Amino acid sequence: MSDSARETATRLDPKWDERGLIQAVAVDAASGAVLMVAHMDPAALAATLATGEAHYWSRSRQEVWHKGGTSGNVQRVREVTIDCDQDAVVLRVEPAGPACHTGAPTCFYRVVEADGALVRTRP
Amino acid sequence: MSDSARETATRLDPKWDERGLIQAVAVDAASGAVLMVAHMDPAALAATLATGEAHYWSRSRQEVWHKGGTSGNVQRVREVTIDCDQDAVVLRVEPAGPACHTGAPTCFYRVVEADGALVRTRP
Repeated sequence: MSDSARETATRLDPKWDERGLIQAVAVDAASGAVLMVAHMDPAALAATLATGEAHYWSRSRQEVWHKGGTSGNVQRVREVTIDCDQDAVVLRVEPAGPACHTGAPTCFYRVVEADGALVRTRP
Repeated sequence: MSDSARETATRLDPKWDERGLIQAVAVDAASGAVLMVAHMDPAALAATLATGEAHYWSRSRQEVWHKGGTSGNVQRVREVTIDCDQDAVVLRVEPAGPACHTGAPTCFYRVVEADGALVRTRP
């Protein structure tokens, strides 16, 4: 499918990149905060849609990763939206615990200043 | 720098992927809506921090792309945050116009249903 066909399509037809992945952003359904940014392969996207819990592709482990499968910090998916050219999805989720493996509620706990300093602004 | 060092670092040291890119998410500073998801190379990130206007890496054109440079729909950057392992940034922006080249305010104008149907929910 061409990019312009993807923009108006009424069926899912992701534009997988050269690695076979799309981008995935998890947003807290209650607060609207961006929790984490990751990737999905076809199996992770299918599992997310089928189970209603977020699954991602782990580039480090090279396998599908059921978020919270071991920690219990699952993300219940309330809504999935896809972008114009179908190479990125946004998940609105209800997180059962911290999104970040560091224990922070969101992975985005530092502000980048213009000079490259990182300032921690969130717990 | 190791992943664990990146998590606690107080200086920017992005973890560029095998293509030399990080992920970049633009969020409307006023509404909190996710506007678009793209990539940045080192030059795009440096230009964003230096100018206060969003710059991305265009994978299709293989060049740095000053968002709105031709259309006028620039994104004034109010805050940049970076994630734990420094391979993704979130920009909180004030958009001067639609984020999407289709004219939609956000690229995420369709909901993905469990059966793969895409339903347009936003103008």
